[in-house]
Amino acid sequence: MSEFHGVFPYLVSPLDAEGRVKRDVLADLVEHLIASGVHGLTPLGSTGEFAYLTIPQRIEIVRVVVEAAKGRVPVIAGVAATTLRDAIEQTQAMTALGVDGILAILEAYFPLPDTGVETYFRAVAGATRLSVVLYTNPNFQRSDLSLPVIGRLSEVENIRYIKDASTNTGRLLSILNATDGRMKVFAASAHIPAAVMLIGGVGWMAGPACIVPRQSVRLYELCREGRWAEAMRAQRDLWKINEAFAKHALAACIKGGLAMQGFDVGDPVPPQAPLSEAGKAEVRAALASVGAL
Amino acid sequence: MSEFHGVFPYLVSPLDAEGRVKRDVLADLVEHLIASGVHGLTPLGSTGEFAYLTIPQRIEIVRVVVEAAKGRVPVIAGVAATTLRDAIEQTQAMTALGVDGILAILEAYFPLPDTGVETYFRAVAGATRLSVVLYTNPNFQRSDLSLPVIGRLSEVENIRYIKDASTNTGRLLSILNATDGRMKVFAASAHIPAAVMLIGGVGWMAGPACIVPRQSVRLYELCREGRWAEAMRAQRDLWKINEAFAKHALAACIKGGLAMQGFDVGDPVPPQAPLSEAGKAEVRAALASVGAL
Amino acid sequence: MSEFHGVFPYLVSPLDAEGRVKRDVLADLVEHLIASGVHGLTPLGSTGEFAYLTIPQRIEIVRVVVEAAKGRVPVIAGVAATTLRDAIEQTQAMTALGVDGILAILEAYFPLPDTGVETYFRAVAGATRLSVVLYTNPNFQRSDLSLPVIGRLSEVENIRYIKDASTNTGRLLSILNATDGRMKVFAASAHIPAAVMLIGGVGWMAGPACIVPRQSVRLYELCREGRWAEAMRAQRDLWKINEAFAKHALAACIKGGLAMQGFDVGDPVPPQAPLSEAGKAEVRAALASVGAL
Amino acid sequence: MSEFHGVFPYLVSPLDAEGRVKRDVLADLVEHLIASGVHGLTPLGSTGEFAYLTIPQRIEIVRVVVEAAKGRVPVIAGVAATTLRDAIEQTQAMTALGVDGILAILEAYFPLPDTGVETYFRAVAGATRLSVVLYTNPNFQRSDLSLPVIGRLSEVENIRYIKDASTNTGRLLSILNATDGRMKVFAASAHIPAAVMLIGGVGWMAGPACIVPRQSVRLYELCREGRWAEAMRAQRDLWKINEAFAKHALAACIKGGLAMQGFDVGDPVPPQAPLSEAGKAEVRAALASVGAL
Repeated sequence: MSEFHGVFPYLVSPLDAEGRVKRDVLADLVEHLIASGVHGLTPLGSTGEFAYLTIPQRIEIVRVVVEAAKGRVPVIAGVAATTLRDAIEQTQAMTALGVDGILAILEAYFPLPDTGVETYFRAVAGATRLSVVLYTNPNFQRSDLSLPVIGRLSEVENIRYIKDASTNTGRLLSILNATDGRMKVFAASAHIPAAVMLIGGVGWMAGPACIVPRQSVRLYELCREGRWAEAMRAQRDLWKINEAFAKHALAACIKGGLAMQGFDVGDPVPPQAPLSEAGKAEVRAALASVGAL
Repeated sequence: MSEFHGVFPYLVSPLDAEGRVKRDVLADLVEHLIASGVHGLTPLGSTGEFAYLTIPQRIEIVRVVVEAAKGRVPVIAGVAATTLRDAIEQTQAMTALGVDGILAILEAYFPLPDTGVETYFRAVAGATRLSVVLYTNPNFQRSDLSLPVIGRLSEVENIRYIKDASTNTGRLLSILNATDGRMKVFAASAHIPAAVMLIGGVGWMAGPACIVPRQSVRLYELCREGRWAEAMRAQRDLWKINEAFAKHALAACIKGGLAMQGFDVGDPVPPQAPLSEAGKAEVRAALASVGAL
Repeated sequence: MSEFHGVFPYLVSPLDAEGRVKRDVLADLVEHLIASGVHGLTPLGSTGEFAYLTIPQRIEIVRVVVEAAKGRVPVIAGVAATTLRDAIEQTQAMTALGVDGILAILEAYFPLPDTGVETYFRAVAGATRLSVVLYTNPNFQRSDLSLPVIGRLSEVENIRYIKDASTNTGRLLSILNATDGRMKVFAASAHIPAAVMLIGGVGWMAGPACIVPRQSVRLYELCREGRWAEAMRAQRDLWKINEAFAKHALAACIKGGLAMQGFDVGDPVPPQAPLSEAGKAEVRAALASVGAL
Repeated sequence: MSEFHGVFPYLVSPLDAEGRVKRDVLADLVEHLIASGVHGLTPLGSTGEFAYLTIPQRIEIVRVVVEAAKGRVPVIAGVAATTLRDAIEQTQAMTALGVDGILAILEAYFPLPDTGVETYFRAVAGATRLSVVLYTNPNFQRSDLSLPVIGRLSEVENIRYIKDASTNTGRLLSILNATDGRMKVFAASAHIPAAVMLIGGVGWMAGPACIVPRQSVRLYELCREGRWAEAMRAQRDLWKINEAFAKHALAACIKGGLAMQGFDVGDPVPPQAPLSEAGKAEVRAALASVGAL
C-alpha cells in the first residue's frame, strides 16, 4: 500500500455550461500543480463539488486526473454516497481507474448511529486493496466520526489516514493519542497546517493548496525540517487564503482564484453562485500578498 | 391545474436486497391506501428514502404508483436534487410519467443563499405545467426556505402549496398571513394535524398516514366539519404514532409498521438500520391502541 | 392552592436610568391590565428581564405588583437561579410577599443532566405551599426539561402547570398525553394561542398580552366558548404582534409598545438596546391594525 | 500596566455546605500553585463557577487569593455580568482589592448585537486602570466576540489580552493577524497549549493547570525555549487531562482532582453534581500517568 504525506490540493471540478468536464483545463491544472511540487492530488473532495456531480462526471474527472498525473504523484479519489451499494460501486470504479487511494466520505440524510457509520467505512475499505483516508466534515455533513468509531476503524488494515475538517485542532491530537500510530492525520483548511505538523500530522489536504501550491510546499518543508520560526512567518501570511476560503463559498473561492491565475475552470455548478465581487477582491489581495498572482 | 387537499401518505419505497423495486408490494400498498380513503399519494418524500435511491429507482417507483393509482387519487412525486440540471430532468421525467403534482425538495451540501434557493424552486416550477408543492425540512436539510423567499415564490403561478416539516406551527400561520391565499399549507408529521387544520391548513402529507390511513381520513373529516371536540379526541390517540415516528428513524418506523400489517416492504436501504425491537414494541402498541392492527 | 387559567401578561420591569423601579408606572400598568380583563399577572418572566435584575430589584417589582393587584387577579412571580440555595431563598421571599404562584425558571452555565434539573424544580416546589408553574425556554436557556423529567415532576403535588416557550406545539400535546391531567399547559408567545387552546391548553403567559390585553382576553373567550372560526379570525390579526415580538428583542419590543400606549416604562437594561426605529414602525403598525393604539 | 504571560490556573472556588468560602483551603491551594512555579492566578473563571456565586462570595474569594499571593504572582480576577451597572461595580470592587488584571466575561440571556457586546467590554475597561483580558466561550455563553469587535476593542489602551475558549485554534491566528500585536492571546484548555505557543500565544489560562501545575510550567518553558520535540512529548501526555476536563463537568473535574491531591475544596455548587465514579477513575489515571498523584 502507498504511503501518503505532504500537500494534497483538493482539485476543483472544471465543467462547461452543459456539465461536460473540461478535460484540457483539468489536465493543465494537474500539470501545473505537479510542477509546483505538490505531493499528491485529491479530486472529488468538498472543493471538488462531489455533492453536485453525477457518477459519470465523477468518473470522468478522476480518469483525466490519473491520466494527466502519469504516476508522478499519488491520486486519492473521493468516494461519497448515502448507501453501501453506491459506496462500494464507486470505490471499485475508482480503484479500476488506477488511483492510489480512496478518500471515503459518508453522506447522510437521516442521522446515522455509530454502528451504521462504522459499517459504511468498513464497506468502502473492504471494496478495495488501496489505502483509505477517512473524511469527516461536521460543518457540512449530517454525520460525524466519533472517537470510538475512529479507534475501531483504525484496526482495519487499509484504513490508515484521517482528514478531519472540523475546526477543532485538539481533536486531532486526541485521534493521534487514541490510535497509537495506526492512524495518520492530514490537516484541513480549517486547521493551521503548521500547528498540525507540530502535533504530528503528515500533511494537509485542502482546497487553498490549489491556488498557492508552491507556497504550501515550502511551508511543508520548513515544518518537516523543524524550522518552526520560519514556518510560522510563512504560515501567518498564508492563513489569509484559508480565511477567505472559509468566508466565501469553498468551490467558488478556489474556482475564482484559479481563473485569476489563468485557468479557465468555469463557475460552480448552479444554483451555487460564482465568487462575488467582494470575494474576488479579497482572494486577489490574498494571492498577491503571498506572490501567487 | 389540480387542486390538492386531505390526507397524502408519504409512501415507503419497498426494495429487495438487490435494490430492485418490489412492484407488487408497492401496488398492493397503493390499493390498500386508496381503499382506506386517502385523498392522494406522495412517493419519494423523506419517508420514501429519496436520498438513498438512484434516479432509475425513483422513476420506477413513481411509475408503479401512477399505474396502480389509475387516476383515482392524485399522485404528487418527490423531486430532490442539489443541482438545477438534475432537478429539471427529474421534474420532466416525473411529469412524463403522468403524475399530478411535484413535491420540490432542495438538497444542499454547501449553505445556499436565498437567491440560490429561489432560483432552484423557480427552475422546478418552470420545468412542468403541474402544481408544485414546496417542501422544507430544517431538521434534515442544510437549507431552509425563508419567509421572504416563500413570499416571492408564492407569486409563481404553479407554486401553490407548501409542506413545512419544521416543528414550528406558528411559522405556518406566518406563511398563510404573508402569502394571502396564494399558498396553501399541508401539515407535516411534526405538527398536530388538527391544529394545522384549525389555522387554515388543507391537509397533511406524512409518513404515519401510511399505517393509519382510515384513522387519518376520519380525523381529517372531523376537522373539515368543524367537529373540533371529536377531532381532538381522535387526534390525542393518533399523536402516539407521530411520537414514535419522530423518535425512531422515519423510514424504519413506517416500514416496520407496514410489515406488522402484512406488507412485505423490506428494510430501509443500508447502512440504515431496520426498526429496533424497542421501536417495534412501541409502534405495535401505538397501532393497536388506534385499531390499526 | 389557586387554580390558574386565561391570559397572564408577562410584565415588563420599568426602571429609571439609575436602576430604580418606577413604582407608579408599574402600578398604572397593573391597573390598566386588570381593567382590560386579564386573568392574572406574571412579573419576572423573560419579558420582565429577570436575567438583568438584582434580587432586591426583583423583590421590589413583585411587591409593587402584589400591592397594586390587591388580590383582584392572581400574581405568579418568576424565580430564576443557577443554584438551589438562591432558588429556595427567592421562592421563600416571593411567597412571603403574598404572590399566588411561582414561575420556576432554571438558569445554567454548564450543561445539567436530567437528575440535576429535577432536583432544582423539586427544591423550588418544596420551598413553598403555592402552585408552581414550570418554565422552559430552549431558545434562551442552556438547559431544557425533558419529557421524562416533566412526567416525574407532575407527580409533585404543587407542580401543576407548565409554560413551554419552545416553538414546538406538538410537544405540548405530548406533555398533556404523558401527564394525564396532572399537568396543565400554558402557551407561550411562540405558539399560536388558539391552537394551544384547541389541544387542551388553559391559557397563555406571554409578553405580547401586555400591549394587546383586551384583544387577548377576547380571543381567549372565543376559544373557551368553542367559537373557533371567530377565534381564528381574531388570532390571524393578533399573530402580527407575536411575529414582531419574536423578530425584535422581547423586552425592547414590549417596552417600546407600552411607551406608544403612554406608559413611561423606560428602556431595557443596558447593554441591551431600545427598540430600533424599524422595530417601532412594525410594532406601531401591528398595534394599530388590531385597534390597540 | 502589568504584562502577563505563562501559566495561569483557573482557581476553583472552595465552599462549605453552607456556601461559606473555605479560606484556609483556598490559601493553601494558592501557596501550592505558586510553589509549583505558575506565573499567575485567575480566580472566578468558568472553572471557578462564577455563574454559581453571589457577588459577596466572589469578592471574598478574590480577597483571599490576593492576600495569599502576597504579590508574588499577578492575580487576574473574573468579572461576569449581564448588565453594565453590575460589570462596572464588580470591576471597581476587584480593582480596589488589589488585583493585577481583570478577566472580562459577558453573560447574556437574550442575544446581543455586536454594538452591545462592544459597549460592555468598553465599560469594563473604562472602570479600571488595570489590564483587561477579554474572555469568550461560545460553548457556554449566548454571546460571542466577533473578529471585527475584537479588532475595535484592541484599540482600547488597557484591553491587551484575549482568552478564547472555543476549540477553533485557527481563530486565534486570525485574531493575532487582525490585531497586529495589540492583542496577546492566551490559550484555553480546549486548545493544545503547545500549538498556541507555536503560533504566537503568550501562555494559557485553564482549569487543568490547577491539578498539573508543575507539568504545565515545564511545558511552557520548553515552548519558550523552542524545544518543540520535547514540548510535544510532554504535551501528548498532558492532553489526557484536557480530555477528561472536556468530557466531565469542568468544576467537578478539577475539584475532584484536587481532592485526590489532598485539597479539601468541596463539591461543585448544587444542583451541579460532584465528579462521578467513572470521572474519578479517569482523572486519577490521567494524573498518575503524568506524575501528579
